[in-house]
Amino acid sequence: MTTAEQVQWLVDRAAISDLLLSFAHSVDAHDHERYTANFTDDGVLELPFGRFEGRAAIAAMDQPIAEMASHHITANHMIELDGDAARARSYLIATHVFDRRDPRDYAQAGGWYDCELRRTEEGWRFTRVRLSVVWESADMIRDGADEASATGTAA
Amino acid sequence: MTTAEQVQWLVDRAAISDLLLSFAHSVDAHDHERYTANFTDDGVLELPFGRFEGRAAIAAMDQPIAEMASHHITANHMIELDGDAARARSYLIATHVFDRRDPRDYAQAGGWYDCELRRTEEGWRFTRVRLSVVWESADMIRDGADEASATGTAA
Amino acid sequence: MTTAEQVQWLVDRAAISDLLLSFAHSVDAHDHERYTANFTDDGVLELPFGRFEGRAAIAAMDQPIAEMASHHITANHMIELDGDAARARSYLIATHVFDRRDPRDYAQAGGWYDCELRRTEEGWRFTRVRLSVVWESADMIRDGADEASATGTAA
Repeated sequence: MTTAEQVQWLVDRAAISDLLLSFAHSVDAHDHERYTANFTDDGVLELPFGRFEGRAAIAAMDQPIAEMASHHITANHMIELDGDAARARSYLIATHVFDRRDPRDYAQAGGWYDCELRRTEEGWRFTRVRLSVVWESADMIRDGADEASATGTAA
Repeated sequence: MTTAEQVQWLVDRAAISDLLLSFAHSVDAHDHERYTANFTDDGVLELPFGRFEGRAAIAAMDQPIAEMASHHITANHMIELDGDAARARSYLIATHVFDRRDPRDYAQAGGWYDCELRRTEEGWRFTRVRLSVVWESADMIRDGADEASATGTAA
Repeated sequence: MTTAEQVQWLVDRAAISDLLLSFAHSVDAHDHERYTANFTDDGVLELPFGRFEGRAAIAAMDQPIAEMASHHITANHMIELDGDAARARSYLIATHVFDRRDPRDYAQAGGWYDCELRRTEEGWRFTRVRLSVVWESADMIRDGADEASATGTAA
């Protein structure tokens, strides 16, 4: 690779890492508008409890209740670039605090996201995100299926 | 951005990530001199149990007892550059082992640091670090308030 | 540093991070061939329960049973470059699920790897990896010493 190509490779990796960070942080900030904007218009989100196809469907997901807090560690950003497309696998540790006034009442899960991405005029966006859960300490959601999409990022 | 500007952007991000790593590692290495040196002379550290203003105040914090061990995962480095200033939010999972001979007797907490930084002649340094704890498994400190600053990085 | 030197510094750091990711992921993917290929021919792996010298010895380690699943978070990539050699310390949180059909039956440990690396014609490879465990929730291995090397990456 030329130096210019190396720089582009590094910049693309950094931008995709930033998108993975935005994805995690938008959940923890209860910013569902930004969460949705991480996807292309036709982006697909596959979670253990449901599949959401397109930004409109993702935008319409149930939201976390205000009392909840969450903390999503994102790491192990394995990124493969292919021009204006990319694939990424990223690891997560998700923590759900059921009432933010009680930081000791929480559940945790770990797993990874398999992501497909496309370079758009807005920057890199997800065309597909699929979550696989490897371990969990307890139910990540309480009080039934209505809150099933409360966090958007872990079963 | 020109290629040179892109490279500077990448180098600044890498240097700020390295500072966040040094911050975490200096605690785990019980290297309080290096911990303090991560701040500017007027740097401010805000922890749940106290506020420390300036390197001298940070240097004077109580130190961890030799028997303790700690492990600070730092991740999700969200960095916003603005010339010679920057902001960063980083996530952490902190583990405190109360006696390093017993690795099963520990407490964990997770949260994030909100950081402000300045480019100095020594490199990037913190002008402000504020810790927010989102979850914790148990008291991170034992035996009263005297050890409250034992770790410097989690409540 | 010139811009070209800065780019090389960034590319080397990215390549070493990718090797650390490959190391973690090859365990979780039960891909022992790739795990072994992360080392130089004379690479040394030092785990709490054993020392393995050379690719052939690493390749001959006991393998995880198919029912197990694992999840290795790798973070805090502290990398020091020195021409065609490098040192790295990386942090990990390892989770072992004893039967992948039961994601709630797991053990966790945290610690770090001290790594030495060499630039080869295949790219950066480990000449030495030494694991230190700082904390653990329970035995990471069940059913005796035969499975002691089942994961290759945590005691």
